Amino acid sequence: MPRPAVEFWFEFASTYSYLSVMRIERVAEAAGVEVAWKPFLLGPVFLALGWNDSPFNIYPPKGRYMWRDLERLAMKEGLPFHRPSRFPRNGLLAARVALVGVEAGWVAPFARAVMTANFAEDREIGEAAVIEDILRALGLPADEVMARAQADANKLALRCQTERAAELGLFGAPSFRVGEELFWGNDRLEDALAWACAGAA
Amino acid sequence: MPRPAVEFWFEFASTYSYLSVMRIERVAEAAGVEVAWKPFLLGPVFLALGWNDSPFNIYPPKGRYMWRDLERLAMKEGLPFHRPSRFPRNGLLAARVALVGVEAGWVAPFARAVMTANFAEDREIGEAAVIEDILRALGLPADEVMARAQADANKLALRCQTERAAELGLFGAPSFRVGEELFWGNDRLEDALAWACAGAA
Repeated sequence: MPRPAVEFWFEFASTYSYLSVMRIERVAEAAGVEVAWKPFLLGPVFLALGWNDSPFNIYPPKGRYMWRDLERLAMKEGLPFHRPSRFPRNGLLAARVALVGVEAGWVAPFARAVMTANFAEDREIGEAAVIEDILRALGLPADEVMARAQADANKLALRCQTERAAELGLFGAPSFRVGEELFWGNDRLEDALAWACAGAA
Repeated sequence: MPRPAVEFWFEFASTYSYLSVMRIERVAEAAGVEVAWKPFLLGPVFLALGWNDSPFNIYPPKGRYMWRDLERLAMKEGLPFHRPSRFPRNGLLAARVALVGVEAGWVAPFARAVMTANFAEDREIGEAAVIEDILRALGLPADEVMARAQADANKLALRCQTERAAELGLFGAPSFRVGEELFWGNDRLEDALAWACAGAA
């Protein structure tokens, strides 16, 4: 019997991905479910839907609501939150580094640190200096990691992962996959974990 | 101290409104919260956002996901569900009748019957004969209710309520309002009720 598992598809610019990144390790461990972290880029996925910006910027009533909703949810979760002065930030570099972290086993603490920088500390996560700071604070060899992250093979791996997201029918983040079953949004994390447990039972 | 209260904004064509219509009376009563039923039309609200159809039709990956999500949620709730052969159906007549039901005190059972007709029985809720059937099955004077529903004053009242929805920043259904606080989606019903209770405490 394989251990129950969930794929966690997230993007560093995404507000609701912030909530899931901060809590998935804790709730998945409590449920006995293994997490496969899948950083990807929403930009190309949104472009395929005809959006050249976040839908929260394109549709102002949705955006106004989302910021208030996020504030309430962060309060409920006991998470710090400060509305970023720029939205969405460019998550490309962070996603490339996260891919390296998936291989090396430190993606979870790295992702939490980047999300905290973006959504609680209003730092420019698109800049290499900020990502290097985060790596060093985690005790990781920043120069070496950055070199691996920006190597052609790793760039290609992220492009493939983003194309795969669209093929799988993803249209937003966070998304969770259990077998062929897709769950969209931080609100569905518990349902995805329950589905994983039921499938493995 | 006023009794805690929530405004429940819903549309008969809306899939996630189906879930909330079927459960709101039960969960609100358990929480001690009064429900003000606010039928409105999503069409004009969507048009103002640039959509001339349901976004679930405009964006196929969102639509595919929604139907599967709804199927799963209905199963979880123990609700019957049959994907309507036409979507979205025209909710105009049902909304007009529902407004009469708000006044007369039978909006909740009427709304549940219409939603069941649309999302479990695949019936054409845009047709007068179907709505009249539903009224009769509830023991209501169908002819009299239909006449009141289609009187100019009532038509105007629904138009005003729909305009009010847009003014309040609503962009989808179901939505819940507690004071100035807006909650969007069936997933937020519990949060809205908790907010109402906390505000009244």
